Amino acid sequence: MEKLKKYASLKDEDQFYHEGAVELLVFNFLLILTILTIWLFKNHRFRFLHETGGAMVYGLVMGLIIRYATKTSDVESGTVYECEKLKSGPSSLLINITNQVYEYQYKREISHHNVNAHQGNAMLQKMTFDPSIFFNILLPPIIFHAGYSLKKRHFFRNLGSILTYAFLGTAISCIVIGLIMYGFVKAMVHIGQLKGWEFHFTDCLFFGSLMSATDPVTVLAIFHELHVDTDLYTLLFGESVLNDAVAIVLTYSISIYSPKENPNAFDAAAFFQSVGNFLGIFAGSFAMGSSYAVVTALISFMAFFQHLTKFTKLCDFPMLETGLFFLLSWSAFLSAEAAGLTGIVAVLFCGVTQAHYTYNNLSSDSKMRTKQLFEFMNFLAENVIFCYMGLALFTFQNHIFNPLFIVGAFVAVFVARACNIYPLSFLLNFGRKQKIPMNFQHMMMFSGLRGAIAFALAIRDTQSQPKQMMFTTALLIVFFTVWVFGGGTTPMLTWLQIRVGVDPDEDMKAEAASQSASNLDKNTTKAESAWLFRVWYAFDHRYLKPILTHAGPPLTTTLPGWCNPVARLLTSPSAYGDQLKNEDTDCIINSDELTENYEASAHMPVPAQDRTGCSQAAGKEDIREGDLGLGAYELQLEHTPGRPQLNSVA
Amino acid sequence: MEKLKKYASLKDEDQFYHEGAVELLVFNFLLILTILTIWLFKNHRFRFLHETGGAMVYGLVMGLIIRYATKTSDVESGTVYECEKLKSGPSSLLINITNQVYEYQYKREISHHNVNAHQGNAMLQKMTFDPSIFFNILLPPIIFHAGYSLKKRHFFRNLGSILTYAFLGTAISCIVIGLIMYGFVKAMVHIGQLKGWEFHFTDCLFFGSLMSATDPVTVLAIFHELHVDTDLYTLLFGESVLNDAVAIVLTYSISIYSPKENPNAFDAAAFFQSVGNFLGIFAGSFAMGSSYAVVTALISFMAFFQHLTKFTKLCDFPMLETGLFFLLSWSAFLSAEAAGLTGIVAVLFCGVTQAHYTYNNLSSDSKMRTKQLFEFMNFLAENVIFCYMGLALFTFQNHIFNPLFIVGAFVAVFVARACNIYPLSFLLNFGRKQKIPMNFQHMMMFSGLRGAIAFALAIRDTQSQPKQMMFTTALLIVFFTVWVFGGGTTPMLTWLQIRVGVDPDEDMKAEAASQSASNLDKNTTKAESAWLFRVWYAFDHRYLKPILTHAGPPLTTTLPGWCNPVARLLTSPSAYGDQLKNEDTDCIINSDELTENYEASAHMPVPAQDRTGCSQAAGKEDIREGDLGLGAYELQLEHTPGRPQLNSVA
Repeated sequence: MEKLKKYASLKDEDQFYHEGAVELLVFNFLLILTILTIWLFKNHRFRFLHETGGAMVYGLVMGLIIRYATKTSDVESGTVYECEKLKSGPSSLLINITNQVYEYQYKREISHHNVNAHQGNAMLQKMTFDPSIFFNILLPPIIFHAGYSLKKRHFFRNLGSILTYAFLGTAISCIVIGLIMYGFVKAMVHIGQLKGWEFHFTDCLFFGSLMSATDPVTVLAIFHELHVDTDLYTLLFGESVLNDAVAIVLTYSISIYSPKENPNAFDAAAFFQSVGNFLGIFAGSFAMGSSYAVVTALISFMAFFQHLTKFTKLCDFPMLETGLFFLLSWSAFLSAEAAGLTGIVAVLFCGVTQAHYTYNNLSSDSKMRTKQLFEFMNFLAENVIFCYMGLALFTFQNHIFNPLFIVGAFVAVFVARACNIYPLSFLLNFGRKQKIPMNFQHMMMFSGLRGAIAFALAIRDTQSQPKQMMFTTALLIVFFTVWVFGGGTTPMLTWLQIRVGVDPDEDMKAEAASQSASNLDKNTTKAESAWLFRVWYAFDHRYLKPILTHAGPPLTTTLPGWCNPVARLLTSPSAYGDQLKNEDTDCIINSDELTENYEASAHMPVPAQDRTGCSQAAGKEDIREGDLGLGAYELQLEHTPGRPQLNSVA
Repeated sequence: MEKLKKYASLKDEDQFYHEGAVELLVFNFLLILTILTIWLFKNHRFRFLHETGGAMVYGLVMGLIIRYATKTSDVESGTVYECEKLKSGPSSLLINITNQVYEYQYKREISHHNVNAHQGNAMLQKMTFDPSIFFNILLPPIIFHAGYSLKKRHFFRNLGSILTYAFLGTAISCIVIGLIMYGFVKAMVHIGQLKGWEFHFTDCLFFGSLMSATDPVTVLAIFHELHVDTDLYTLLFGESVLNDAVAIVLTYSISIYSPKENPNAFDAAAFFQSVGNFLGIFAGSFAMGSSYAVVTALISFMAFFQHLTKFTKLCDFPMLETGLFFLLSWSAFLSAEAAGLTGIVAVLFCGVTQAHYTYNNLSSDSKMRTKQLFEFMNFLAENVIFCYMGLALFTFQNHIFNPLFIVGAFVAVFVARACNIYPLSFLLNFGRKQKIPMNFQHMMMFSGLRGAIAFALAIRDTQSQPKQMMFTTALLIVFFTVWVFGGGTTPMLTWLQIRVGVDPDEDMKAEAASQSASNLDKNTTKAESAWLFRVWYAFDHRYLKPILTHAGPPLTTTLPGWCNPVARLLTSPSAYGDQLKNEDTDCIINSDELTENYEASAHMPVPAQDRTGCSQAAGKEDIREGDLGLGAYELQLEHTPGRPQLNSVA
C-alpha cells in the first residue's frame, strides 16, 4: 500500500513535467503558426495586419480554446483555508497533511471577489506565467537589440528632439493621462462603482506612466520594410526606445512615492523625493549599463593584454567571445535589477555602448554571431510577448472590466499623445534647422502604439483590484492600437504623402555631397548637435576610442607629453601599424573592402578597426559605426599627424 | 495605514524580482569566470583540469560561499503548520491570513528529518532551481547538438558495435550496479542504518539505470581537441550519446515498474510490461523525433510548393527559417514529453534526422545560423549544468550522506563499466573486421564519466529519503569521475599509446585510396554495416532524399513508370537542373567548392544540394552530409542515367 502511494506520487510528479511541456508546446505552436503567417504575409505583401497583430490574434484564439475547451481538473483549489497562527504571508510554507510535510511557495495575493474564479482550471493557471519572466527573460533581448542596432549617425543628429520627446513628452503624457483618469475615477466613485477601493491620484499617475510607454516594434518594422524617410524613422525609433526607459523608471518612481500623511494631499517632500528617485535610478542604470559594456570592450580589446602577457587574442575563440559578450550584457541587466535600479534602462545603454566600442574589437565571426544571436532572440521574444498578450485576455483570471474606466483610458491616451507631439514639435521647430513638417507630426501622433512595455509594466503588479482593472484596460488599449493603428500604418503613410523607399546611406551621401558643395558644412551639424556632444565626441575620439578599441589615433599623439609612458602602454599596437606586418593577407582583403566602404559613404573616414587582423569589415553594416554622426568633423581629425596610413605596410 | 501596508507589500514584491535577478547573476558570474578560465586554459594548453571540471570547482566554491556567508533571512519557514481539513497536497492552496487571501503553490514533499534544514536561508532555497528546468531547458540543446553534429559516416561504419554497447552494455551496467547495490543495501539494513526506509531491489535497479548514463561532454571535448583516432572517437561518442537515451528510458521504465503484490518478489507480468514500456517509449520517441524533423524538411524543401503555388522560398528569409527550425526541433522534445514519451530521445533522433535531410535544404546563411545557435546553446547549457552540479553539493538542502552506500556505489560503477566494455568488446571482435584493440578497450573503460544526464535523472526525483541518498551519491560520483578521469584523459592517452592528431578526412581519404587500390572495396563496408542498413540506404537515397531534399536522383527515374505523374509533382525542379539556368554565378562558386570537396574526400560523390541556388556549400563541414557512410556504394548509384551533370547548364 505504501508502495502504491509512492507510485501515485511519482505519477503526479511526472504529470507536472508533462504539463510544463504542454504549456511550452502551446507557445511553440503559436510561434510556428506566427512564423508561417509572416512568411505568407511576406509573399503576398499583405500589410493591413502586421505580424505582431497576427501573433496576438493567434494568442487570442488559443486563449479562447484553453479557457472554454479544457476541463476543470482541480476541484480542491477553490477552497480557502484559515490559518490563525500566521500573521503575514511567508515566502514558503511547510504544511503537515496526513503526517507528511509538504512545502508550498508563495505566489500572490488574491482579492476576495476573485477567489471563485480560481475554482478549477489548472491549465489556465499554468498558462499565466510569472511576470518576472517578462522582466528577466523576454524584455532584455528586445531592448538590448534596439540599443545595439541604433543607427548612431542619424540618432545623434536628432538627439535634441528625441530627448525632448522622450523626457518632457513622457512626463506630459503621464500627467495628462493621470489627470483625465482622476476625473473619470471621481465620476466612478460618484456613481458608486468603486465601493471600498482605494484609488488615489498617485494610482492615476501610475496608470498614466505605464500607458506612456509607446511600442517601437510594430510601426518600426513596417517603416523599416518600406524604407520610410530616415528622419521620421529616427525620430520615432529614438523616441519610443528612450521613452520606454523613461516610462519604466517613472512607473517605478511613482509606485514608491509615499506621502507621509494624507495620500490625497500633495506632499512636496515626497514629490521631490520621487523626482530624485527618478533621476537617481535613471542615472544609476545608465552608469551600470555603460560600465558593463566598457568592461566587455576592455576584455575583448586584447591588444592591451597582448603586449603585457603572452595571451592569444580572445577573438581567436569566437564562441568564448560571443559567450562573454552575451553574459556580460545580460549581467548589466541583472546587476541593475539586483541593485534596485532599472535593468531595462541599463541594458539599453549597455547595447548602445557595446555597439560603439566592443563591436569594433570583435572578430568578424563574432560580429556576425552576436548580431544574429540578438536578432534571433529579439525575434522570438517579441513574438512570445505578442502571443502572450493575446492569450492573457482569456487566461488571466483576475480581469476587471469597467466600461467607464476603459472609455476614460482611451480618451486619455489619445489626448495625452496629442499634448505630447504637437506642442513639443511646435517648440522644437523654433530650434531646428530642418523643421518637423506637419505630416511627420500627424504620423508620430498616429504611431503611438502601446505594446510590450506597457503590458509588462501592467502585469508586473496585479495584486490589488485597481491594478487588476488597470491591467485589463491596458490590455484592451494594446489590442486596439496594435490592430487598428498598426494595420493602418501603410495607408496612413500614403495619405500623409510621406516619402518611402529611401536608402539611408544614399540619403546621407546626397546630403554630404550638398554639404561639401556649399563648403559651409559644419554649421548644420553644429546647430543640431549640442555643444556638450561635440565636447564629448572629441573626448571619445581622442581618449576613449583608443583605449577601448583599435580605432582612433594612438594615445601618444593625443595625450600630453608627460603621459607618454602610460599612453604607450595603453595604446593598441595596431594603432601604430605594428600588427600589419605579419598580416599581409588580411590587409589585402581589407583594403578592398575599405575601398568599397569608402565608395558607399563618400565622406565617411576609413574605419580604423579594419586594420587589425581580427576584424574584417562586415560590409555596409559597419556604417553604424559611423562615430556620432559628425562625419565632417571627423574628416578633419583624420589628417592629424601620427595616424598610420594603410600604405605603411613594409 | 492601509496605504503603508500596500506599500510594504509592493516592496516585498520588488524584493522578489531582485532576488530572481541575484540568482541569475550568480550563474552569469560563474559562467563568465568559466569562460575566462577556458580562455586561460586554451592559452596555456592546460589539460589536467578540463573546463567542465573548472566549472564545477567554481560552482562548489560559490555554493560554499552562499551556504555559509549569507545570513538566514526567513525565520518563519522552519515552522510546520498543521492542516486537519486537507487529505492530500493540492497543487495550489488558498490561505486566509489576517483577512487577506494568499495563493501558495505546491513545491515538494519534505522528509521529517530534513524539516530543520529548512530553517532559514531563503537564498539557498532559491538557488536550488526546479529540476524540470534541466529537462525542459538545459538538456535538449545539449542532446540535440550531439545528434546534429554526429559524423554520420563514421557512426554508421561502427553502428553494430555502438548499438551493442548502448543497448546491451547499458542493460548489463544497470543490472550489475543494481545487484551490487542490493548487496550493500542488505548490509546496511543488517547494521540498522535504514530503519523505517523502504528500499527494494527495484530501487537499486533504478539507481543502476541512472548511473549507467555516461557523459559525452568532457572526454569528447578533449578527444576532439587532440584529434584522437577517429574510430575510438566515434565508438565513444556514439556509445555515450545513445547510452544516455537508453539510460533515460530505462530509468523511466523502472520507475513505473509496479508489481501487483510483494514488491520484493519477481513479478513476471510486471517485468514484461516494463520491457514493453521500454521498447514502446524508445520507439515512440524515435518516431516522434524523426517525424518532426521530416516535417521541418518538408517545409524547408520549398521546391515542392514552389511549382504548385507562387510562394517564394523560405530560404530567402533566414530568420524565419532558423526560427522554424529551432521551434520545430524543440517541439519534437516537448511533444514527446507531453505524450508521456522521452523528450531527450526524441530530440536526439530529431537532431540526426535534421542533419540528414533539413540541413541540405537550408540556405547557406541558415546553415551557419543554426549551427552557431545550437553550438552556442550547447556551450551555455553545458556550463550551466556543470556549475550547478558544483553548487548543488552545498545548496541542496536534503543531502543524505551514507558512507557505506557511497563506497558501494563507487565499487558498483567501476565493476559495471568493466562488465560492459570488456566482455562486449571480446564478443564484438569476433564479428568486426577491424578489431577493437585492448588499448581502445582500456580507454573506453577509463572514459566512463558520469555527468549531466546522471545528475539530471537523480535530481528529477528527490522526494523520498532513498532517492535523496541516491542523489547525494550520484553527485559525488560525478565529481570524482569528472575531476579524476576527465583530468587524467590526456596522460592516459599517452600511456595507452593511442594515436592523436588524426584528421578524420585524411583518414577517410587514405582508406578510400587503399580501397580503390585493392579494387575489392565493397567487402569491408558491407561486412561492417548490416544488410538492413544497406536496404535502408537504398530506400533513403532513391525515395526519401529526392522527396525531402534537393539531393538524390529525380523520382521519375527511381519510381516505376506508372507513378510518373506523382513523381514529377514531387520532384524538386533542381533535380532536373532546371534551376541552374538562372543561377550561373552560383554555379561557378559552387563548382570551385565542389572540386575542393571532391579532392578532400576522393570517393565522395558531388553533393547534389550544392546545385540549388539556396545552399552554397559551407566548405568541408558538408562532409558530414556524407550519406550513411556507404561511399563506395553511392559511387555506383552516381552513374545511374537521368541524373543531371553539372555540365548540363545551357
